[in-house]
Amino acid sequence: MTAPTNDCSNRFETLVIVGVGLIGGSVAAAVKKRRVCGRVIGVGRSAGRLQAAQRAGLIDEAQTNLPAAAAEADLLLFCTPVDCIAEGVLEAAPHCAPGTLLTDAGSVKERICRRLEGKLPKGITFIGSHPLAGSEKNGFEHADADLFCRRVCVVTPGGDTPPPMLARLKRFWEALGMRVVETSPQEHDRLLAATSHLPHVLAAALALLLDEEYHPFAASGLRDTTRIAAGDPALWTAIVRFNRRWLVEQLQRYESALGTFRQAVENDDPVALKNLLQRAKTNLGGLDES
Amino acid sequence: MTAPTNDCSNRFETLVIVGVGLIGGSVAAAVKKRRVCGRVIGVGRSAGRLQAAQRAGLIDEAQTNLPAAAAEADLLLFCTPVDCIAEGVLEAAPHCAPGTLLTDAGSVKERICRRLEGKLPKGITFIGSHPLAGSEKNGFEHADADLFCRRVCVVTPGGDTPPPMLARLKRFWEALGMRVVETSPQEHDRLLAATSHLPHVLAAALALLLDEEYHPFAASGLRDTTRIAAGDPALWTAIVRFNRRWLVEQLQRYESALGTFRQAVENDDPVALKNLLQRAKTNLGGLDES
Repeated sequence: MTAPTNDCSNRFETLVIVGVGLIGGSVAAAVKKRRVCGRVIGVGRSAGRLQAAQRAGLIDEAQTNLPAAAAEADLLLFCTPVDCIAEGVLEAAPHCAPGTLLTDAGSVKERICRRLEGKLPKGITFIGSHPLAGSEKNGFEHADADLFCRRVCVVTPGGDTPPPMLARLKRFWEALGMRVVETSPQEHDRLLAATSHLPHVLAAALALLLDEEYHPFAASGLRDTTRIAAGDPALWTAIVRFNRRWLVEQLQRYESALGTFRQAVENDDPVALKNLLQRAKTNLGGLDES
Repeated sequence: MTAPTNDCSNRFETLVIVGVGLIGGSVAAAVKKRRVCGRVIGVGRSAGRLQAAQRAGLIDEAQTNLPAAAAEADLLLFCTPVDCIAEGVLEAAPHCAPGTLLTDAGSVKERICRRLEGKLPKGITFIGSHPLAGSEKNGFEHADADLFCRRVCVVTPGGDTPPPMLARLKRFWEALGMRVVETSPQEHDRLLAATSHLPHVLAAALALLLDEEYHPFAASGLRDTTRIAAGDPALWTAIVRFNRRWLVEQLQRYESALGTFRQAVENDDPVALKNLLQRAKTNLGGLDES
């Protein structure tokens, strides 16, 4: 009898995180807490910020030179804004050792994955990831080692993704406490347009209406409803632009649903209103159970 | 020298709460915790539910007969659905002793206040109240003695409201830890249409879109955004209908703001998008400070 060959033991010794902000810092904290990797190198533009993250115990080493860090990586994770990820991968990949896995934590997948198709050196793999966790806060100072616990991570392999690499990536996110779901990059973007990008735009449009005279009359429900719109405008501009096609489609679906609601309000129709509110509540019940 | 005549000492000895659910139960709990009234009588249709609320220590006495309870009241507070409040007040008022103050906790004010104008016996006063606190949960089991702490209560006196009665009502809500804001019933409804009723409809319309296939892809932001839409459909149908005029106006404002957003998305216009997202974020900052 031979021992089963099991990739489970095949952990990533050196994790390089590019962009040590809220997400990158939280991955670092989770990896440390759960001893998922041997060491963590943080990459960023500001040596001062990286040193602060190192003093906070999030990373073992700080590096402002991406190629130098890439050469050390077993897993290279980009936690940069969505409009910087593909360029970062293309810059880093030629310096990576064969067998290195590159991934990201961006909120949009299709445009990034398509940009990288066929562009990477032999033996270097990129697979998109999107851990569905976050906050409207920014900076590693808000890093949370449990941010990913019991949350979903979407991974988006392509047709040429080596299955062992996909398996290793899944185990990495699982080791952080996540449940991994696999979709195509397009499917990810269509679904997230509805569950993340549309809600962000809806909350922002509501916030636009709420000038000063309304502020004293805000109850807690309103703060919950609008909180996500406090996210960084530059980051979200890039997300919205990168998922334009599906977001426009979901906005059209939403405008139609809202029009149905407005009609029922204008018609003062109690049956239609109660029916719409009940269907909404039922859908939310399903959401809580998922 | 005479002692200053100060209504501050003039507390309501007997508080009667009609509708001992989440809000009525929380008022009862807060009144008990802060010793704001001498005794609390709960009124409802179900003797069993009231007895359970009594066993839970929320109320001192249970009464299914509104006129009998009204006769004992110094302050009579209606925590019933908005479409039941005016009828309840009209039923109770003839049984109240002169000097009794009646109020409510309804989310809509103009229609209720107008219905009661000139309809109450001499010496009986109704003033609308709306404590801006709540939850998507129902039932006194979720009552919270601190639900009203540091929250706003809107009171909506009319032209013929006796100033001493208004002062006593304000002190009652202040004794529960609330900051009291005074508006006309119309002004309340216009403002709350934007800060409460519109967000409810927006969240419900979003929930309508989120059928099963989207559920695994919901991050925490989505749950926050849609939570309020889990409120009771019958209660909210009544609220929406009672504030139809202002809600339609706010829906139109919203559709226009959302249209501006969609245009910027469709045009792939980074300057317009970032500008809109920044204005939204700035408004939210003001909301948090208020």
